[in-house]
Amino acid sequence: MTADAVRILGIDPGLRLTGYAVVEAAPGRWDPALVEAGVIRLDADASVERRLVQLRDDVREVIAELRPGRGAVETLFAHVKHPRTAILMGHARGVILLELAAAGLPVGQLTATAVKKSLTGGGHASKGQVQRAVQSQLGLAAPPEPPDVADAIAIALCAGRRLATGR
Amino acid sequence: MTADAVRILGIDPGLRLTGYAVVEAAPGRWDPALVEAGVIRLDADASVERRLVQLRDDVREVIAELRPGRGAVETLFAHVKHPRTAILMGHARGVILLELAAAGLPVGQLTATAVKKSLTGGGHASKGQVQRAVQSQLGLAAPPEPPDVADAIAIALCAGRRLATGR
Repeated sequence: MTADAVRILGIDPGLRLTGYAVVEAAPGRWDPALVEAGVIRLDADASVERRLVQLRDDVREVIAELRPGRGAVETLFAHVKHPRTAILMGHARGVILLELAAAGLPVGQLTATAVKKSLTGGGHASKGQVQRAVQSQLGLAAPPEPPDVADAIAIALCAGRRLATGR
Repeated sequence: MTADAVRILGIDPGLRLTGYAVVEAAPGRWDPALVEAGVIRLDADASVERRLVQLRDDVREVIAELRPGRGAVETLFAHVKHPRTAILMGHARGVILLELAAAGLPVGQLTATAVKKSLTGGGHASKGQVQRAVQSQLGLAAPPEPPDVADAIAIALCAGRRLATGR
């Protein structure tokens, strides 16, 4: 890691799967490196509150191990198709924002459109297109699976690019 | 507090105001006592993540001071008028469920209809009716203000009544 490089933790929250990715970027130089990415899988049979405790513990572990300097999440959608699912996602997002702030990390919020546009050039890319764009941009052997990981990488890459290039 | 009495912490989550109330109840005997109730007021100018840290700290303080044996919240609404507000409420609710579970408290979930019915006899009481029913049931000098406190007391009372009477 060069002296001025910053590790950005992108997170795609969910009460079943939470994707996370740490990307390293340096101001003024757009040459991102993927440090690590994966998913936090919560026990679908456990109560929401037990899942949130597990999510908190796993997010803390990711932060402690990968030592990011900042966090990034997507902004909330203005329109939602399934309010109940969105509110439950809000539970996970709340715990993640809490842990990022409690760890002293500044949190950037990016619109879903900005994330997709930064990666694919268009604001309406499908999940598959995001997976392939992430694969190509990082020179990975295969598209990241499940899509939640690709989404988290895309968020971290978009935040990294803004840091590196100012746009 | 009698040997078998249990303190129940009712919480009405919000990113601006979170009402809380601790009620003492004993199995087999419906004679509830209000231990304490109040609101946690979050700084509306602060970021969501800073507010969630404040909420976590304040909920921890309430649990440490009042030592409840269980928690109670309302279930999620099936239909929401303002999804964005509901998702933000979900952030607060997530942090509250996390702290209750992390403190080892079992969490009861009650429908809004059950809470109102338990208190007023009807499932569609207005905020004012809930405030007056809480006032009358606990023999308070005035209705609890703001309504968020009355809602938290109503949740704790409903959970206490179930514990005491089995219904």
